[in-house]
Amino acid sequence: MSKILVFGHQNPDTDAIGAAIAFSYLQNQLGKTTEAVALGTPNEETQYALDHFGLPAPRVITAIKEEQADVMLVDHNEFQQSVADIAEAMILAVVDHHRIANFETANPLYYRAEPVGCTSTIVLKIFKENQVEIPQAIAGIMLSAIISDTLLFKSPTCTAEDEAAAKELAEIAGVDLEGYGLEMLKAGTNLSDKTAAVLLDLDAKSFPMGGANVRIAQVNTVDLNEVLGRQEELETAMQAEMTENGYDLFVLVVTDILNSNSELLIAGEQTEAVEKAFQVKLDNNRAFLEGVVSRKKQVVPQLTEAFN
Amino acid sequence: MSKILVFGHQNPDTDAIGAAIAFSYLQNQLGKTTEAVALGTPNEETQYALDHFGLPAPRVITAIKEEQADVMLVDHNEFQQSVADIAEAMILAVVDHHRIANFETANPLYYRAEPVGCTSTIVLKIFKENQVEIPQAIAGIMLSAIISDTLLFKSPTCTAEDEAAAKELAEIAGVDLEGYGLEMLKAGTNLSDKTAAVLLDLDAKSFPMGGANVRIAQVNTVDLNEVLGRQEELETAMQAEMTENGYDLFVLVVTDILNSNSELLIAGEQTEAVEKAFQVKLDNNRAFLEGVVSRKKQVVPQLTEAFN
Repeated sequence: MSKILVFGHQNPDTDAIGAAIAFSYLQNQLGKTTEAVALGTPNEETQYALDHFGLPAPRVITAIKEEQADVMLVDHNEFQQSVADIAEAMILAVVDHHRIANFETANPLYYRAEPVGCTSTIVLKIFKENQVEIPQAIAGIMLSAIISDTLLFKSPTCTAEDEAAAKELAEIAGVDLEGYGLEMLKAGTNLSDKTAAVLLDLDAKSFPMGGANVRIAQVNTVDLNEVLGRQEELETAMQAEMTENGYDLFVLVVTDILNSNSELLIAGEQTEAVEKAFQVKLDNNRAFLEGVVSRKKQVVPQLTEAFN
Repeated sequence: MSKILVFGHQNPDTDAIGAAIAFSYLQNQLGKTTEAVALGTPNEETQYALDHFGLPAPRVITAIKEEQADVMLVDHNEFQQSVADIAEAMILAVVDHHRIANFETANPLYYRAEPVGCTSTIVLKIFKENQVEIPQAIAGIMLSAIISDTLLFKSPTCTAEDEAAAKELAEIAGVDLEGYGLEMLKAGTNLSDKTAAVLLDLDAKSFPMGGANVRIAQVNTVDLNEVLGRQEELETAMQAEMTENGYDLFVLVVTDILNSNSELLIAGEQTEAVEKAFQVKLDNNRAFLEGVVSRKKQVVPQLTEAFN
């Protein structure tokens, strides 16, 4: 098939959408006929970045079959995170920065993965290897992806390569990295118009831990008090979710993206595991965690160990 | 773990061993501590190349556990083609040119695959991206791998990139590409001292085709008559293998690497499928196939279709 769709994972974040737009542009410059699409609509942070650089949101698709196209994946590879009928598609290329699992192809393909903080950092490398110039708007959305995935270089997943890539892209995009970065991250922290239930579901995952069913939600904010001022409302919603879904423990991680700290709000009986995991004493069901911003690296492993 | 082993697939060919030696050298230049090893001893072609460039054969390993090392894979990814306990190893990197299947990791890794004819072509690219100079002997074994995988650019799996890479490496290695290439390929065609049974097992695979169990063996030669002069002995051995292993059809593909043609020798009842697949008439159980050198691309798909 001559038509190729390029897309990131379900519930797309700024890298899933930004890397798709950038990699699709690059492929078109190299002579392919591709279209960047998405498996969902942009979140508020991503929409801010698209608007800032004058880019339209990619068309949303729900299946490949009706598209009559081959595919290129960015920012994911596991089939359960991809389009529903991915197993029947011809996958021509993958660019990603995650582990590889639940993935297979019938034919040789282009696969480019590196253990860096953001897919767009790898896409920048491929632009350079092919000596293709990056337009301002494309550089801008790639920069936005790196800022998003690394929380402006403060996440422990960030590497020196991500930071160097962001600086280079900020030059091309013509923006002040710190200033634009903070504004973009703030755009994703507009929580005041969301109900407690919506807020708890923005970015939540369940984890089995030593026999317990633990729910861990994370929200980014520029003001911890803006979120924690709604503690009572949040606790009521957490208790309701626990009853409804059988969670044994609900951990809400409220992350201050300006100062790179988090405050936990806990619901459930098994608070001892939380205190042990982070070596803190809960006070009013809350605890402050200095320097913690990554659920993947700084919350899940510690809590898992405390439960085991 | 600080120790890292780099290796190719079981029954190693020249690319499996050459790409391991080259990629290990590159990683060491970049500051890692790696050792190129192998999952078997070199075949005669590979041994010729190693001797020519004064390289020792890599140490043979049978398991990772006892080595206390992390691993980097070249020229394969599927676990059943790798070391027995690969699933328990920490895989840091893969460089390959095959489909991806039966492969997974717990952590993000470096994965570099491209649909080219040889892994060493990709390794050359990574050398350049990292601006690491290639020593003469390393260039020589990488060149040998490309010649081997592409049958001196005559296989349909060969791309323009493979050919350009080989020319560049021949310069560094200081050899005449055509002259050296033919000598190396010939070194792998020393069949006269092998029994018919050994010859049939050098490079043989079984394929289920429309209910039939088809065995397809391939041998490379510089003189079709040298092999087909032993037709009677070969047919006896093919019949014996069919009885012993329940094959319905035995196809021996004798490939003339000088002229890029093959002659088939067939045992079994279902000769109609063979005649249909290649649009030929068998004469004395044999048929000449003009321009056919690749079992993967020019024999298996055609025969599969004839059976279905």
